Amino acid sequence: MDPRRLQEVLDGRWAEAREDTREHLLNPELHPLSGLGVEEARERTWRQLELLAKTRGPLLGFPTRYGGEGDVGGSVTAFETLAFGDLSLLVKSGVQWGLFGGAILHLGTEKHHERYLRAAMSLDLPGCFAMTETGHGSDVQSLRTTATFDPGSDRFVIDTPDDDARKDYIGNAARDGRMAVVFAQLMTAGTEHGVHAFMVPIRDEEGATCPGVRIEDCGTKAGLNGVDNGRIWFDQVSVPREALLDRYASVAPDGTYSSPIENDTRRFFTMVGTLVQGRVSVSGAAVSSAKAGLAIAIRYGLVRRQFRPPDEPRELVLLDYRQHQRRLLPALATTYALHFAQEALVARLHEAFTSDAYGERQQRMLESLAAGVKATSTWHATHTIQTCREACGGAGYLSVNRLADMKADTDVFTTFEGDNTVLLQLVAKGLLTDYRDEFVDLNTFDVLRVAADLVIDQVLESIAPARQLVRSLIEAVPGNESDTELRDRGYHLELFEWRERHVLEGVARRMKRGIDEGSDPFEVFNAAQDHVLLAAQAHIDRVVLETFVEAIDRCRDAEVTELLDKICDLHALSILERDRGWYLEHGRLSAGRSKAIISEVNALCAELREHAELLVDAFAIPEVVLAAPIALGEELTRQDGKRPVKGEAALPGFAPPPP
Amino acid sequence: MDPRRLQEVLDGRWAEAREDTREHLLNPELHPLSGLGVEEARERTWRQLELLAKTRGPLLGFPTRYGGEGDVGGSVTAFETLAFGDLSLLVKSGVQWGLFGGAILHLGTEKHHERYLRAAMSLDLPGCFAMTETGHGSDVQSLRTTATFDPGSDRFVIDTPDDDARKDYIGNAARDGRMAVVFAQLMTAGTEHGVHAFMVPIRDEEGATCPGVRIEDCGTKAGLNGVDNGRIWFDQVSVPREALLDRYASVAPDGTYSSPIENDTRRFFTMVGTLVQGRVSVSGAAVSSAKAGLAIAIRYGLVRRQFRPPDEPRELVLLDYRQHQRRLLPALATTYALHFAQEALVARLHEAFTSDAYGERQQRMLESLAAGVKATSTWHATHTIQTCREACGGAGYLSVNRLADMKADTDVFTTFEGDNTVLLQLVAKGLLTDYRDEFVDLNTFDVLRVAADLVIDQVLESIAPARQLVRSLIEAVPGNESDTELRDRGYHLELFEWRERHVLEGVARRMKRGIDEGSDPFEVFNAAQDHVLLAAQAHIDRVVLETFVEAIDRCRDAEVTELLDKICDLHALSILERDRGWYLEHGRLSAGRSKAIISEVNALCAELREHAELLVDAFAIPEVVLAAPIALGEELTRQDGKRPVKGEAALPGFAPPPP
Repeated sequence: MDPRRLQEVLDGRWAEAREDTREHLLNPELHPLSGLGVEEARERTWRQLELLAKTRGPLLGFPTRYGGEGDVGGSVTAFETLAFGDLSLLVKSGVQWGLFGGAILHLGTEKHHERYLRAAMSLDLPGCFAMTETGHGSDVQSLRTTATFDPGSDRFVIDTPDDDARKDYIGNAARDGRMAVVFAQLMTAGTEHGVHAFMVPIRDEEGATCPGVRIEDCGTKAGLNGVDNGRIWFDQVSVPREALLDRYASVAPDGTYSSPIENDTRRFFTMVGTLVQGRVSVSGAAVSSAKAGLAIAIRYGLVRRQFRPPDEPRELVLLDYRQHQRRLLPALATTYALHFAQEALVARLHEAFTSDAYGERQQRMLESLAAGVKATSTWHATHTIQTCREACGGAGYLSVNRLADMKADTDVFTTFEGDNTVLLQLVAKGLLTDYRDEFVDLNTFDVLRVAADLVIDQVLESIAPARQLVRSLIEAVPGNESDTELRDRGYHLELFEWRERHVLEGVARRMKRGIDEGSDPFEVFNAAQDHVLLAAQAHIDRVVLETFVEAIDRCRDAEVTELLDKICDLHALSILERDRGWYLEHGRLSAGRSKAIISEVNALCAELREHAELLVDAFAIPEVVLAAPIALGEELTRQDGKRPVKGEAALPGFAPPPP
Repeated sequence: MDPRRLQEVLDGRWAEAREDTREHLLNPELHPLSGLGVEEARERTWRQLELLAKTRGPLLGFPTRYGGEGDVGGSVTAFETLAFGDLSLLVKSGVQWGLFGGAILHLGTEKHHERYLRAAMSLDLPGCFAMTETGHGSDVQSLRTTATFDPGSDRFVIDTPDDDARKDYIGNAARDGRMAVVFAQLMTAGTEHGVHAFMVPIRDEEGATCPGVRIEDCGTKAGLNGVDNGRIWFDQVSVPREALLDRYASVAPDGTYSSPIENDTRRFFTMVGTLVQGRVSVSGAAVSSAKAGLAIAIRYGLVRRQFRPPDEPRELVLLDYRQHQRRLLPALATTYALHFAQEALVARLHEAFTSDAYGERQQRMLESLAAGVKATSTWHATHTIQTCREACGGAGYLSVNRLADMKADTDVFTTFEGDNTVLLQLVAKGLLTDYRDEFVDLNTFDVLRVAADLVIDQVLESIAPARQLVRSLIEAVPGNESDTELRDRGYHLELFEWRERHVLEGVARRMKRGIDEGSDPFEVFNAAQDHVLLAAQAHIDRVVLETFVEAIDRCRDAEVTELLDKICDLHALSILERDRGWYLEHGRLSAGRSKAIISEVNALCAELREHAELLVDAFAIPEVVLAAPIALGEELTRQDGKRPVKGEAALPGFAPPPP
């Protein structure tokens, strides 16, 4: 099969943004380059960013009146595609256009857009997103930087009370940023109104730090060393009243505070909610990185030979070994599943920003989905790239083969834009409160009280609506295990849904019991934390499977559909294999059935092994971007053209390391 | 409790070697330093190696007549302790003294010892261990470099036929090595006699490459960039007949080949077997790295606060969250288990090299144990350090906190000194052939035929001998599940042993069936590969648990014993939790029991949380070596001394990255 047929299905609605980005990635200046020192890497990333600023991708998501295209979906998809290449460039562009530009766009009003957006888009104004503090990363609502309004001067004073409140890990801060969107507790007329965002200059046009601003370099990191992360302190830095990004709150010259959203917590989460694009972007980048890692490891596994079976003329290629298939192919299947989950997430994000009819509950569900898919896809990328490295042995450890940098660069994806564990708690919180209006007002522990009152059946119905396709598949499943095919899609869906429902009901019951017994709410929550996280994971697993099923249903190419069905089988069954202990404990799998699932995963691996090359080629990662020699014929050339060394000139000394 | 009481038990028999190495590690020149360029890193590692050469550790394992102490156990333990510090230095020292020096010692005879050992020990002769080729990493027996004897000149000609046969990933090759132990197929009088080792000069005293030798740099790697890995080609390089390390085979001036071991394969594995120390060393280093990672993450988890529960005055420390305990404490318990497994392995290694009564079967069992423990401990280190990095969030991503480099440096441990998957197959091969004499003659696929004939009960009896302690614990277990305490040690032992036996019997039966049915042996093997690997894992799990139990039994400090018992419970139960799907499938756990195990893991985490600091302090990693500011009070200082920034001078620009 021509991989382009499969690619077409994968590229989907925003194929143009993908193709456009692939085109730009052909530029050798944008290719990943390892072994640079930190300063060299930063310099190169900056130059790459300037090149990128001249392309269409970064601007796609901005409003047309400022030269953008108002295409959020395209913008996120372009970002996702950029992740095939240099990941420092990716993250640096995410800081500039996603976080800095996005905050101005979503939290500011027209005066801010007029003043800053074009400069942010063109990179004339390099900026930072100064939210995280050393003392508060996950619990952003408790940030301690202050912004105190002084009616006398009509200005805000931004201040860092101590090292706990210094801004930390801020991209673009150590070297390039000139302005920062600073998140701080707004104080006016003696009252604190919670976290708000302010436009604060940090360097002048010559790059000198502004008065009252102190910046420190975060230094070398595991990866992403082209990104200049830094720490920022503000010592009574004065900014005009207009520096407040005032879409959700404003302060009058006399110091009167007003906001359309009365409750501080709710306002805060509404503000943060507009920034959901960052999480969606990281999730997409993780999926792309997993694709690139698998493309390298699978291509190598298809040509690398080791050990000759008896009676065979040649050694066997690695991917013919069952264990090698088991290491790579289920991960590939889940990467496909997450691709379609990501696509569905992007579509929902796009709708949120382009449709007027997007309600608050839908927004909450989008945020929850983004959190869950981000946690799942970034952990998946971390595990998958690690496995790919190991599957390539010593060659995988060499930087030239890219897996090393890919692993190091993507490692922090599980942490930034929300720690994965905290994000899964957010997902569970949404489920347990049915995304009700008061959702945003609740802290993690208050959720218990709400959850205890819920009618869980209604909740489940609302989060897993009876979609025609899924329901009809589930309803067609025979009533007993022995009559059900292992590859019956309805069977998979039913098992996934049953698990979500069962775990969620269990958690809710446990909460209710704890509250009824008068236990300390935190103790109840903490004792159930593993249970709560399991509920979130079961939910996301179900949603990911359903989006995969729906994507296959939309496919009009029969042969592609057949192949996707097999990939979906492997994805679903390998998840069931992973979780079979749970299903056995809960009487939903018999022992024999559980063993049969293991055998079926093996069988599917063997069937998909024949299509492995096609499956990674369909990701359409340009070869110059994939770059790893082991994935691009080096191994085959070496084997096929075993050249005599005799007669070749011996090179003196040793070759220098790559520049 | 004073951590030194626990430390004493951990330090064990080779406490002196540990203390000695800890002492040397205090030297600031030996401390890890990140952010160096490749050439700088190599230069620094070389200087560190020179400093290390002046200490006692590297020489411990060499014979007394050359200035060593003949203490193999001490030597490996010193190496293990060195792994708390700079891992490039560790690996470079392993190449010089373990691989290069070890090969001369074990494969050479007196003339080689006299000529080379002192220079290798003093670092006057930096050397390489040139075994792996680009085309053959795991399958070393198929190396293709040739060493052809020419009676006319009384010399061997070393030749690299093509790029497939170039030596690859060779430590010390790209920059410092002057001589290499080269593994090549020995040809004489028109006959090939298999792989042998030869002393081959590769650079002269000025560092110029020798004629006929070509060396290429492997370039930047994921980690260990202080080690100069390179590729070497030999173009008809002539070396004297005495260059053959001739402990196991010699060639007479007329070209006559003779060896005390007739069979080529058996001779090869006997030679390779003498090098088992390398695997034991890597395994020890992995355990130490896991300890260092956990010491950092747990110390941080004990002071880092995030989210304030209702009605609490302060935010909670991370390690009070159940999920944080679950991420770190079972990994800590397994690190303890692997510590004692490593200690037992080292003791066995020491005995092999110092006792005359060490038979071939015992040697095979030692190699198998080394392979299994190495695979288990290196994967454990990789997973644990990854988890520690994530558990420290953004701070864990900064090089200054060491987890980033630790992860990158140790990543290749799962690959070098034997790919872990291949090693587990070796373990299974030993089990399935009962380490019989013909063990070494069999290739992986022939094993099937042997296994099919075995009386598996006898095999199991011989590999799991009825040791008094283990047997008596198992015999005291009540006959039914409901009467058995979850923390009954005999219960754990019995479940682990039952699993090993059941899986191994299953594999043997499957092999037999396949052979009886006349199936292609490779197909039978490959279809069962996951099953074969499971057998190896189950075996190692059982052995690790038993060595832990025996170590606790030897402890004479009642309070320490009580604590170790709890750690052992957590280790055993978390393995059972991981594998509960299997136990449920095989009717060895009821559903209720399986759920109870999960609860018990939670309970043990909560109990051990109180001792977490003690448990990592007992590793006695010097603070200057641990080095990570987040583990050494930085976080606490920041929280306790929330200093006003006001009045502090703003530093200009940004601080430069660390040198």
